[in-house]
This record gives sequence, C-alpha cells and structure tokens, in this order.
Amino acid sequence: MQEAIDISDIRAARSRLEGIAVRTPLLESPLLNERAGRRVLVKAECLQLTGAFKLRGAWSAISRLTDSERKNGVLAYSSGNHAQAIAWAAARAGIKAVIIMPEDAPALKIHNTRSYGAEVVLYDRAGGENREALGQTLAADRGLYLIKPYDNAMVMAGQGTCGLEIAEQAADAAVSDADVLVCCGGGGLTSGIAIALEADAPTLKARPVEPESSDDVARSLSSGSRQQNDGPPTSICDAIVTPSPGELTFPIMNRLCKSGLTVSDDESLMAIATALQTLKIALEPGGAVALAAALYRSNDIEGDAVICVASGGNTDPQILARAIALSGQG
Amino acid sequence: MQEAIDISDIRAARSRLEGIAVRTPLLESPLLNERAGRRVLVKAECLQLTGAFKLRGAWSAISRLTDSERKNGVLAYSSGNHAQAIAWAAARAGIKAVIIMPEDAPALKIHNTRSYGAEVVLYDRAGGENREALGQTLAADRGLYLIKPYDNAMVMAGQGTCGLEIAEQAADAAVSDADVLVCCGGGGLTSGIAIALEADAPTLKARPVEPESSDDVARSLSSGSRQQNDGPPTSICDAIVTPSPGELTFPIMNRLCKSGLTVSDDESLMAIATALQTLKIALEPGGAVALAAALYRSNDIEGDAVICVASGGNTDPQILARAIALSGQG
Repeated sequence: MQEAIDISDIRAARSRLEGIAVRTPLLESPLLNERAGRRVLVKAECLQLTGAFKLRGAWSAISRLTDSERKNGVLAYSSGNHAQAIAWAAARAGIKAVIIMPEDAPALKIHNTRSYGAEVVLYDRAGGENREALGQTLAADRGLYLIKPYDNAMVMAGQGTCGLEIAEQAADAAVSDADVLVCCGGGGLTSGIAIALEADAPTLKARPVEPESSDDVARSLSSGSRQQNDGPPTSICDAIVTPSPGELTFPIMNRLCKSGLTVSDDESLMAIATALQTLKIALEPGGAVALAAALYRSNDIEGDAVICVASGGNTDPQILARAIALSGQG
Repeated sequence: MQEAIDISDIRAARSRLEGIAVRTPLLESPLLNERAGRRVLVKAECLQLTGAFKLRGAWSAISRLTDSERKNGVLAYSSGNHAQAIAWAAARAGIKAVIIMPEDAPALKIHNTRSYGAEVVLYDRAGGENREALGQTLAADRGLYLIKPYDNAMVMAGQGTCGLEIAEQAADAAVSDADVLVCCGGGGLTSGIAIALEADAPTLKARPVEPESSDDVARSLSSGSRQQNDGPPTSICDAIVTPSPGELTFPIMNRLCKSGLTVSDDESLMAIATALQTLKIALEPGGAVALAAALYRSNDIEGDAVICVASGGNTDPQILARAIALSGQG
C-alpha cells in the first residue's frame, strides 16, 4: 500500500521551511553523558519558533494551501503546540485561524495561541467532548480548511524535516548507529523522522516514547494494529496524550520503528530538571519523555549513543518549579 | 598603543575552536519581541559546551600552549564558568588543571568543575582573600601555567569568536543596526565581541551590562579610566562581579563600546523567568543581565532591534525556582 508521504515530500517541505523554521541544535553535555552512562544527543525542538517542532508541519501545510483553501481561514484542533504553530503560521501567511483547544490545556498555551492572533474555541476534553466532531461542524459551518495535527500528509512531511537535520547533525557528531527516541502522540513527528532517517541515515532507528498511561503506540507496534487508550488522559504530558496512533502515521511507524518505550510522569519531571541543569533548556512534560527514557530505560536501549528529540518547551512555569523541587535540587 | 588582540587573533581562534565549540543559535521569540517592544535576538551562550561562553576562551588559550607551558599543568582562578571551561579543556587536551574558586561560588559550579577532572582549591572571597595573590603563589610553588579569566590575549581572542558568529547571524536575521548588549565582568567577552563587530559588522555596537552594585565598567567608560568596585560583591550575579575592568580589555572597550547599562538583581531574576517562558533557555543571573536591560532599560536603547548575549546558564536550580516565583508565575 502507498504510504502517506515519501522522502521527496520531506525534502520539498524543507525548501518551503527555509528562512522560516529554526535549524535547532543537537546538544550534548559531558555531565549528562556521565549521568546516562552513554552519549546522549538532544535535538532541542523546544528552541523551534513557537516553542515546539509543530511549526515545521504547520508551515509545511499552510504554505501549500490553494487560494480557495485559504479564503475563509484555517481550523485546527490541538492541545496547544499545533495550535500555537498554526496560529503563528496563519498570521504570517495572512490567513485567519480558528483553533479548538481543551479547556484544561496549559494556560500558557491558550494565552500564546491568542497572542499569535488566532480565535480560540475551548471544549471539554476531560468530560469527553469529541474535538473531531466539533471540528467538522465548525469547518462546515464557516467554510474553514481543517489542518489535522498529525493525520495530514503535508504536516507529516514538515515534521520529517527534523529527521533530515538529525541525520546531518548525527554524522557531524560521529554518531552512526543509535536509537532515535521521539516523544510520540499521534505519530506525526515519529513517522516523519522515520522516513527521513530511512533515506539519509538508515542505521539510526526511530523509537516512539510515551507516558505509561497513554501507551497506545507502544501497544499498537507490538500488536501490529492500531490500539486505543481507554477514557480521558491522566498524564501531565498534555502534548502527547492522543487516543490512538494516526491512520496515516501508523503504517509508517509499523514498518520502520523499533519497539516503543514508556515512562512515568515523575520520570518526565526528573528529566525536565536534568535538562535545565545540564543542557540549559526548558522542556514541557510531553517534550521530556524521550530524555526520560534515555535516563531511566537505559537497559532497553542499545548502543554507545542515543539521540533524544526534545519536542517542545511550552509549559506553565509551575511545572518547572515542580520538577526542580521533585529532583531534590530546589 | 597596540591593543592586546586584533581581528586576526580572533579568526585564528575560530579555526582552533572548529569541532570543539558549539555555534550557538541566535534565538528570537515573537512573544518576547512583543514584551520588549522591539525585536530581541538572543545569542544563547548558555548552550555552549560547559554552559557558558568561557569554553571559547579556555580552548583558545589551552590549544596554543607550548610543551613546556603544558608540562606541570594549568592554573585558573574563577567564580565558576572559566573554572569549568578550563577544567573541561585541560582534560580534553590531556593536561592537569588546578582551579582556585571562591567558597561561596554556586555549589553546582564547584561540583561540575570537579566532575570535569580538575583539582579545586577554595578561597574566602567574602572575607577579602586575594585570589590573584593566592594564584601567583600556587603557580610558583607547583610550576603551573596561569590562564587568567580575561586579561589574557588568547582568552580574549576566543571570546571574540562569539562576535564573529553574531555578525553572521544578525545579517541572516536582517538586523543591520543595533546595540549588542553583553553581560560584562572583567570585559573579556565584551572586548572580544567589540573587535569582531568592528571588523565584520561595524554598525552593530557592543555595550556592557552589569549589576547596579558592580558597575565598575559603566563608570570606567564614562570617566575614561579604570574604576574599582568597593568591598566584596553583593549581587547574585556571581559570574560578573569582578573588581574592575581588565588592564588588557579596558582600552578596547574604551575605544569601541557605547555607554554601559546596569540592572538590579530582581530585574535579572525576572529576565530569567522570561527566558524560560519565551525562549526555553535556562540562564544564570550573571548571564541574564543583558536580557534584563533589553526588557527594563528600553528607553536607553535605540533601534528597532537589540541583540543580547545570554552568556551562561550555570545556576543552582533554586535560583530558577526563585525567578519563577518572583515573576508571579510559580
């Protein structure tokens, strides 16, 4: 079966992103290496414009819209990072943006999305209101063009540009054979990176990392078919608590990814404190699970080096304070 | 009078630093721009190896030592960032390092310096013990080669490589005429950047920023001669509370720098919170004064854009927690 994207889509997205997206650094700290027992290279997507990798996919999609798709504006549903990215990208492109966000999203994410100029519509995630259904109604009523957060080929292609950079930066850092741990929600970033690595660095293998209470991708990879999470999410990793892997993303992950890893919320908070101390970057819980796996699932990782994608840093400051306190350093 | 370094020394240092130092990103955040009322571009030297720009100068100096200078090892005195940089660089070069540090330096800096393999000798800064005298005695007794933190031409040339990068990155960001605010202690970084900008981006002007209780450089620039701070330092900006501008650095700053700026400790803490929230980077107080000036001395800065050098991020985590609490976000 034809997959949603191939490497040429990612290379084309990279051209469109030139001069827009930040080529984020692949950071390394001798003190972190010592703590993890191997080289740990961290792709700092928290330093991406709008604070998360999502800007890649958002601009990739928005920069390809036709005039009729742009006309009435775009619609997105998102826990917050796709929201901010679409809001910024739409403003930059001179398009109206309406964003559906859960009421319980971090206040910072809601605030920032509005600051970038988007109209925000809140829904009751905890009470089980369905954002997809709400989105379809809104899109139909107002003639908005829906840009899904991961099940969209242009979004996936944009996220894949992160993988092209990892392939180049790993070579510069003399890392040739390693797991690439990716914080994973619906799988847009993981599948995009997997395609990019297959083409440009086939000895690097993408592996999704999730909160243990939202381990749908890990179970899906192990069973070979898409599995669901039960009930509303309980993890603090709000960016990556999607109900199941995407329809378009899963076939790619299933073909290319090694088994998934999971970590606890406390492990993610400890990883946030470690990132502040050794790498000097601020991560959000959902953006820290890959680093947490490098620190606390050491036995499940092979190789002298591991690459972690630190996918975002949009968190309310009290989460950082909580991470510092939990780590015993506060 | 011949100055301690010229642009050719900085270009030579850059060659030696290739493959060693990180080319740190020049970060920008739309939300930060909005808060500051102009474009703010932040040179994130906290992402430099060992967490501060000091690695540039340390490797620049150590990579030029002769066999006889290397033989018994090197000596440095430092509040912590030069210490860590010399410790790492010496270990990398296979040289012994002895570092004189104040007892009241942040615990993290002392711990890290030892982790990089250096021998740490503590002295009583608050009680007025003189580190220069202690250093000369130790150097003489043990045949160590002293690498001063700023009054050393090769150190200054290394710090100047940061200015070469700023010149290139500002051009990429379409910033052609701006103040470049530099967190300033003894003036190694400020003078190095000033020489680099004079050559490669003469419309960008370096300006030192200091804590208001240690404003020796600002007063020196305004009087035209080197001024001292009275008594032991009281600011929390431990990285930049040197007693006076350097003998080698001051003539360069006096020729090339616009007037200095000063900020309070609380303003520096507020800037730390803003950097965490908008740029996703962790700064130390002494590394945040330039950003604090961009935020709180807006009327003293001209131009549509300002460039801030965020010089370091080595802080005990409780400082970050305190900054978050002070900003009312914790």
